[in-house]
Amino acid sequence: MIKDLWLVGIGTGSPGHVTLDGMQALRDAAVILLPRKGEAKENLLALRQVILEAAGTRAEIRSFDYPERDPALPYAARVAAWHDEIARRWSAALHAAPDGPVALLVWGDPALYDSTLRIAGRLTPRPALRVIPGITAIQALTAAHAIPLNEVNGAVKITTGRRLRDHGWPEGEDTLVVMLDGACSFAGLDPEGVHIWWGAYLGSPAQRLLAGPLAEVADEIIAARAEARARHGWIMDTYLLRRGSTG
Amino acid sequence: MIKDLWLVGIGTGSPGHVTLDGMQALRDAAVILLPRKGEAKENLLALRQVILEAAGTRAEIRSFDYPERDPALPYAARVAAWHDEIARRWSAALHAAPDGPVALLVWGDPALYDSTLRIAGRLTPRPALRVIPGITAIQALTAAHAIPLNEVNGAVKITTGRRLRDHGWPEGEDTLVVMLDGACSFAGLDPEGVHIWWGAYLGSPAQRLLAGPLAEVADEIIAARAEARARHGWIMDTYLLRRGSTG
Ligand SMILES: C[S@@+](CC[C@H](N)C(=O)[O-])C[C@H]1O[C@@H](n2cnc3c(N)ncnc32)[C@H](O)[C@@H]1O
Ligand SMILES: C[S@@+](CC[C@H](N)C(=O)[O-])C[C@H]1O[C@@H](n2cnc3c(N)ncnc32)[C@H](O)[C@@H]1O
Repeated sequence: MIKDLWLVGIGTGSPGHVTLDGMQALRDAAVILLPRKGEAKENLLALRQVILEAAGTRAEIRSFDYPERDPALPYAARVAAWHDEIARRWSAALHAAPDGPVALLVWGDPALYDSTLRIAGRLTPRPALRVIPGITAIQALTAAHAIPLNEVNGAVKITTGRRLRDHGWPEGEDTLVVMLDGACSFAGLDPEGVHIWWGAYLGSPAQRLLAGPLAEVADEIIAARAEARARHGWIMDTYLLRRGSTG
Repeated sequence: MIKDLWLVGIGTGSPGHVTLDGMQALRDAAVILLPRKGEAKENLLALRQVILEAAGTRAEIRSFDYPERDPALPYAARVAAWHDEIARRWSAALHAAPDGPVALLVWGDPALYDSTLRIAGRLTPRPALRVIPGITAIQALTAAHAIPLNEVNGAVKITTGRRLRDHGWPEGEDTLVVMLDGACSFAGLDPEGVHIWWGAYLGSPAQRLLAGPLAEVADEIIAARAEARARHGWIMDTYLLRRGSTG
């Protein structure tokens, strides 16, 4: 039913993050599939509208609702069932065959901690996929702080808040980027010699940045995060940790 | 002398990689500082011209030549001396004070394995830095193969060819991205259970992709890389390795 499916990375909060290829894809698509509610926060839906207007797309917009996740299922099964159900809803929304490529707007880059590619893999028959990269939260973070991601010829580990909580600082790493952390997991680390660069709502007008030796700024970040979260009703934040760095 | 310095990430080979913010910055800059030769290969200079034309910039173009690295110096000192010399050449090119922001075009994203931020840190007085993120080779790779970077909630390690050669597969990692590898360092790994996704000249018309179980495709990649390198006179390639993955 869907012959061509395009996943368009839109960056992390600013229409200026979208690439020329991304804009062109939104213009060339026949149908754009948008979530009506659920996962996406109100202001994220608004951003999608701004991007579509800036692109000047004439694609037909079709909507779907995100399903609820079933709390009765164990984690892996719950995610799998949820992906299956989203794939079904896409198929339903595209039941009337689109007369050309279908585009989905994906937050940041479709490759990074995002399920769209996995959901697309559940469609039958399998559509031809085209992925258009987008600026990630990691890049929005390093750009906002004007810092390099890696030390000279150094390695970088991208990980999640849960992993950092469960396993602590991974052996042998200098630079960690932590995403999907709802719990300020940096607070559980030995802060000695660790520098943090933190950012929330990166790329958007609400962007908030803090940086410094972890021992000195951890409490300030925890407080700023709680305050911002209460004010906005939601938060997305990420941070880079470097060991043995003076900043 | 330089009040505002903008580092504009231009992506990895296609003008379509540039973001709207990047294009706008190239239009708003008063001066664009371009390398004349040295580091940048001929076709990369041509790409820069295409991007500047697409942006429709009216900035004054000033050029500098990349210095040679001094082979007599040990590695760290050699790189430091080279960065110092580049900073001096930027300053010389900007001796006649620009009447507004100065922009530099940076391959990929300025945060990832790039020295521009470190060179900028050597300027005195220190300019106000603005970094505009760009699509990295990693994103061009995952997009071209239409694969996720991470496994569900998994971690990812970004590393270099040298590190992979010197230390082997890092303990506990599922996903590795390898950059700056001039020596097909994947060939030194135990290929059992490892899948590779390889890409060269990503984003450009010359883009070349190969993927499969490492045991089956390693030789093919080595041959394709040698052949492409001989034909083009240079190569840039990167790859993702996943352990315990069926593809
Ligand atoms: C489900 S992942 C999506 C990542 C996205 N695909 C990307 O490329 O950045 C969501 C996580 O990304 C990070 N994130 C996304 N947008 C962000 C923003 N605007 N500011 C700070 N962090 C952000 C947060 O760590 C959040 O928990
Ligand atoms: C000095 S680093 C610069 C990375 C760049 N700042 C980025 O964000 O991708 C150069 C390395 O990036 C990778 N690379 C850059 N451009 C590439 C391309 N078009 N195709 C494949 N690999 C590329 C290669 O691994 C190469 O050795």
